[in-house]
Amino acid sequence: MDSSWDDLTLTFSHTSMFPFFDIAHYLVSVMAMKHQPGAAAIARKNPVSSWLTAMLHCFGGGILSCILLAEPPLKFLTNHTNVLLASSIWYIIFFCPCDLVSQAYSFLPVQLLAAGMKEVTRTWKIVGGVTHANSYYKNGWIVMIAIGWARGAGGTIVTKFEQLVKGDWKPGGDEWLKMSHASKLTMLGSVIFTFQHTEHLAISKHSLMFFYTIFLVTAKITMMMTETSSV
Amino acid sequence: MDSSWDDLTLTFSHTSMFPFFDIAHYLVSVMAMKHQPGAAAIARKNPVSSWLTAMLHCFGGGILSCILLAEPPLKFLTNHTNVLLASSIWYIIFFCPCDLVSQAYSFLPVQLLAAGMKEVTRTWKIVGGVTHANSYYKNGWIVMIAIGWARGAGGTIVTKFEQLVKGDWKPGGDEWLKMSHASKLTMLGSVIFTFQHTEHLAISKHSLMFFYTIFLVTAKITMMMTETSSV
Amino acid sequence: MDSSWDDLTLTFSHTSMFPFFDIAHYLVSVMAMKHQPGAAAIARKNPVSSWLTAMLHCFGGGILSCILLAEPPLKFLTNHTNVLLASSIWYIIFFCPCDLVSQAYSFLPVQLLAAGMKEVTRTWKIVGGVTHANSYYKNGWIVMIAIGWARGAGGTIVTKFEQLVKGDWKPGGDEWLKMSHASKLTMLGSVIFTFQHTEHLAISKHSLMFFYTIFLVTAKITMMMTETSSV
Ligand SMILES: [Mg+2]
Ligand SMILES: [Mg+2]
Ligand SMILES: [Mg+2]
Repeated sequence: MDSSWDDLTLTFSHTSMFPFFDIAHYLVSVMAMKHQPGAAAIARKNPVSSWLTAMLHCFGGGILSCILLAEPPLKFLTNHTNVLLASSIWYIIFFCPCDLVSQAYSFLPVQLLAAGMKEVTRTWKIVGGVTHANSYYKNGWIVMIAIGWARGAGGTIVTKFEQLVKGDWKPGGDEWLKMSHASKLTMLGSVIFTFQHTEHLAISKHSLMFFYTIFLVTAKITMMMTETSSV
Repeated sequence: MDSSWDDLTLTFSHTSMFPFFDIAHYLVSVMAMKHQPGAAAIARKNPVSSWLTAMLHCFGGGILSCILLAEPPLKFLTNHTNVLLASSIWYIIFFCPCDLVSQAYSFLPVQLLAAGMKEVTRTWKIVGGVTHANSYYKNGWIVMIAIGWARGAGGTIVTKFEQLVKGDWKPGGDEWLKMSHASKLTMLGSVIFTFQHTEHLAISKHSLMFFYTIFLVTAKITMMMTETSSV
Repeated sequence: MDSSWDDLTLTFSHTSMFPFFDIAHYLVSVMAMKHQPGAAAIARKNPVSSWLTAMLHCFGGGILSCILLAEPPLKFLTNHTNVLLASSIWYIIFFCPCDLVSQAYSFLPVQLLAAGMKEVTRTWKIVGGVTHANSYYKNGWIVMIAIGWARGAGGTIVTKFEQLVKGDWKPGGDEWLKMSHASKLTMLGSVIFTFQHTEHLAISKHSLMFFYTIFLVTAKITMMMTETSSV
């Protein structure tokens, strides 16, 4: 590939997720939480519980990855800025007068934009997870795949476990791993980035991030347009 | 404040919890466990299970704090003296002939004394948790609040989780965090001691420990006298 | 004891578990999993879920011991050879045409041989757990007993927890610790090896391993012959 193309993907791979992409991720996550039956009532009756659930929805992937690597599951709380950002979004979504955010969010282009931006954060999380696991276990490619997947898609696992413990949800025998589309695509991405990291794929990381992100966003928007999406 | 007052609170803050206050804490915790339906029968049929439950009741706050900081949850077992003390109290309460301890404990002044002394250990646990979390994360004040709260009041969370896993208890959607009074007061204390530790409160730690303990004990005894207490 | 006897037990204690004894352990564990209702159907419908369950059955003791010592629960995945071995056995057992392995396994002498060899791995796991815990906590003999027990018999705890979370199993109040025979014998072994390690027993480790293994294998085979065995 010629140099200007390389420059483009390199620049893209240096995009900071903070604040706009993170905001989109928190917005989509907390809106998904709000659409669960009874969520709005709980937020008024017991805001501490609702806030904790919102944090699990926003930072679930990171928490799961911490548990699997025996790092403190509270580590996400040390990033004060992001916790504050997620808390503000939780507050605005649940307590804004006239439910303005929900009304704006019900407008399809807004949903598509937010969902697309959330998918971008997924690529960054997978790459972060794979790199982080590699710093623990040099040749542990199975662990790298697992942590990349946990960071990128583990939020749903944590959220389901929380619902199970709260008694809101009863699992059938194999429902846990009836993987959503997002989960499968994250697994695929985790495998690809692990192979790239262990130098079994002859493509630069920034190009791969560019192509994989394009693929994720396209897949997500296609699924949303054809109504088969699961968050 | 004059010097003799300062001396008093300083001396108070150096009080050792071992052995008398610890004994009170184990006594109150194991008696609370014994009042659950079926506890006495299980102790005879399956003493290992009963002993484990008693340990969770006595050391639950420490276990939760260890999990949240990714320290070994078995760490409490290395303090042989305290484990032995708690085990002895469990043994005496469940297997003493004529149920002497239960009869003595049904005498209100004994309950008030034990409950008051247990509240004193709570202050020490909150301060210990806040200090310990600060040694991990220098500026992580959210983590400090969380760990102070987990040490001081996390025992009920661990105990409820144990009952859930055993099938003895089914949660409703928001019952987990319908915080007890003790839980709320612990949260308040954790916030205060964190602010003191980060030097946002112009009061010495030993004075604060003194006042907070007086407040906790008074609140607890008032609640017990007016029958609204939850252990 | 004379020198040639000592040589025999020393040689025995240097036996490598890899590959034959490990194969027997994986074979017995995955066959036990296959005998659960619906396991074969899930393997075809959702192989990822079935594979994960198989890994929990094969490496459950190690995972539990990691959790209790705050080591990464994914650590077993870094032993690529053993993961590959266990995965192959899972694949052969569930997907071999004509169910050849199941038919061979239904032949009693094969079952006895595999079960006997699995018991040998148990001794090695207990010794490994006790030694490993001692490297963390020099005098923590309660922790040593707990970790030895967790490595040797914790697989059933992990497996039951997995079934609980999946909704396949509802516990009664004290079913968790209605310890199986294997569990009790493991506890006994863990206590003995801890006392040996802390030099309270005047017997060499290799002799003790020899006698305890003989005892475990004999007990297991006797139980299987008299039909009272629980895996
Ligand atoms: Mg997430
Ligand atoms: Mg406690
Ligand atoms: Mg095992």
